[in-house]
Amino acid sequence: MKLSVIFGGSSYEHEISIVSAITMKKVLSGVELSFIFVDSDRSFYLIDSDNMKSKYFSSADYKKSKSLSLKKGGFAIDGRFGSKALDGGVVLNLIHGRDGEDGKISSLMEFYDIEFISPRTEASVLSYNKLYTKLYAESLGVSVVPYIHLSKLDERSIDIDYPVIIKPVRLGSSIGVSIVKESDDLDYALDVAFEYDSDVIIEPFIEGVEEYNLAGCKTGDWELSIIEEPQKEEFLDFEKKYMDFSRDSQVSSAQIDDKLKDAIEKSFREIYDPLFLGSLIRCDFFVVDGEILLNEINPIPGSMANYLFDDFRGTVERLATSLPKERKISIDYQYIHSIQRAKGKA
Amino acid sequence: MKLSVIFGGSSYEHEISIVSAITMKKVLSGVELSFIFVDSDRSFYLIDSDNMKSKYFSSADYKKSKSLSLKKGGFAIDGRFGSKALDGGVVLNLIHGRDGEDGKISSLMEFYDIEFISPRTEASVLSYNKLYTKLYAESLGVSVVPYIHLSKLDERSIDIDYPVIIKPVRLGSSIGVSIVKESDDLDYALDVAFEYDSDVIIEPFIEGVEEYNLAGCKTGDWELSIIEEPQKEEFLDFEKKYMDFSRDSQVSSAQIDDKLKDAIEKSFREIYDPLFLGSLIRCDFFVVDGEILLNEINPIPGSMANYLFDDFRGTVERLATSLPKERKISIDYQYIHSIQRAKGKA
Repeated sequence: MKLSVIFGGSSYEHEISIVSAITMKKVLSGVELSFIFVDSDRSFYLIDSDNMKSKYFSSADYKKSKSLSLKKGGFAIDGRFGSKALDGGVVLNLIHGRDGEDGKISSLMEFYDIEFISPRTEASVLSYNKLYTKLYAESLGVSVVPYIHLSKLDERSIDIDYPVIIKPVRLGSSIGVSIVKESDDLDYALDVAFEYDSDVIIEPFIEGVEEYNLAGCKTGDWELSIIEEPQKEEFLDFEKKYMDFSRDSQVSSAQIDDKLKDAIEKSFREIYDPLFLGSLIRCDFFVVDGEILLNEINPIPGSMANYLFDDFRGTVERLATSLPKERKISIDYQYIHSIQRAKGKA
Repeated sequence: MKLSVIFGGSSYEHEISIVSAITMKKVLSGVELSFIFVDSDRSFYLIDSDNMKSKYFSSADYKKSKSLSLKKGGFAIDGRFGSKALDGGVVLNLIHGRDGEDGKISSLMEFYDIEFISPRTEASVLSYNKLYTKLYAESLGVSVVPYIHLSKLDERSIDIDYPVIIKPVRLGSSIGVSIVKESDDLDYALDVAFEYDSDVIIEPFIEGVEEYNLAGCKTGDWELSIIEEPQKEEFLDFEKKYMDFSRDSQVSSAQIDDKLKDAIEKSFREIYDPLFLGSLIRCDFFVVDGEILLNEINPIPGSMANYLFDDFRGTVERLATSLPKERKISIDYQYIHSIQRAKGKA
């Protein structure tokens, strides 16, 4: 099995994407991996496996690597005397944040007819934007953490119990996120969030809320991970999250009863199928007063949430062979022909 | 002013996109236009203005045109001895349906840092999918035509008054759309729609409903078109719609009072701003019992709805100089550097 891990991107999460990609080298041993780096300028480079070390990127040494271009059917290695196809198999999209999660990479892959593991463009847009995630989940009957949506130009008169958490709708990794404990601090927190985004959501902040994470995908069958109860922090700051993206050893299951487990899995399946076919995602749920609430969808989870799977490599390999195909549209110009005929020009 | 009209695409509406593009040649006279054709195989061709005739495409003569590639900052004309930048100005996305309206073209333009007129990827996804359009409009407090959403795997037990109209959620141009007059015909109509899409919406079909179309964009100011009351048909079949896309002479305003006009314009502005910045869209509204209901958003309207504008060329030119800019993200590797330092490897 061949896979090309695409990582980096013009994203606030560029660096943690590098960490995620390095982790893939460890957890996908045995798979023939190519590494395609997207630098901050959105140029593509083919990175030798031996160079998959964070310093190779931070030092800009990566620029010595071969440069790649997108062509119909795959990437091509640019050379002085023309280009040569990269035989890299299925692309695994591991760009966190912008480019990877906002639909750009999936659009590029579909346009250039390259097989890829990732949420498709629609799924990307609905999960990258936290407001649209809410609308989508609610439309399926999946409960979400209650929220207020505020646009930059909206009046800031908010009737809400503190503490609250403020999140820009489009960014991952806690950027622009604040916990606000009293109304006096609200304005400043909103200013910070609006620095990053035109829209924010405001949610009640529940100290020590019961949280459960579940990852999975649908290949021939459902492949759901164990359910993890993640460590409690007010929220992960960038550096902790950074470390989190390099996780590579399996964790143990949350101690929950079968009823709760089944209910969490059911919500996951509702969200995943069919919108997220072709991707491996992680959903984070809260349980409040016995009710399961979707907190967020991680369309490209850190290190692909490998640490939640018994057989991560097997899951990825099966997913790579059960990807959705774009419908072929054949264009026969029958309308133009018939109009030409009607005009006597056929 | 220079503009590059991009048209065609791997879309059921490929042919009407050609008609729209030919219309641009008439209605944008005085603008220095380039024509970029995307064939059914998604190859790019630079079409000489003199060849902008439908037969040039239906006969496959277009393959004699120069081929183009996407490069950072713009298209390049491929040649035997390397490639040369196309100096084509701002791209005007005129691909109807898939590729143009589903977010692919906008993703490509953003990724390759090319200025373009079109809904951005998020706006594309929310307007291309009729179900998401409803969720989006409702979240803004804009009323929509009532609907039932049905997925392929859902049970088909529907409690609804006939006649109804069945629409695949993701296709334009009436493809897969049926009007169903009695329950006996429902199953067949759903089978037809599910041939094209995994999801459909079912709406009441209101014979002779009052309908109003309004197009516009935001440049420095709002530039709203006149409001048209379109011709009544059960619905436009493909051939009528085809002719419709070649409209190039201005129509007259609907005879409505100022209150209704203001209310329609208000709904348009709610929908447009800020999600659709950078695009010129047309919204189609129904008025039922005095209530304004959004019927659909046309993210890339046929022939850009030029026939609704007093000064179409001026509007397009102003739009081309007031496009949203993507936020620059500078990547300084501070987290990788600090981790390197912590490990003593700096």
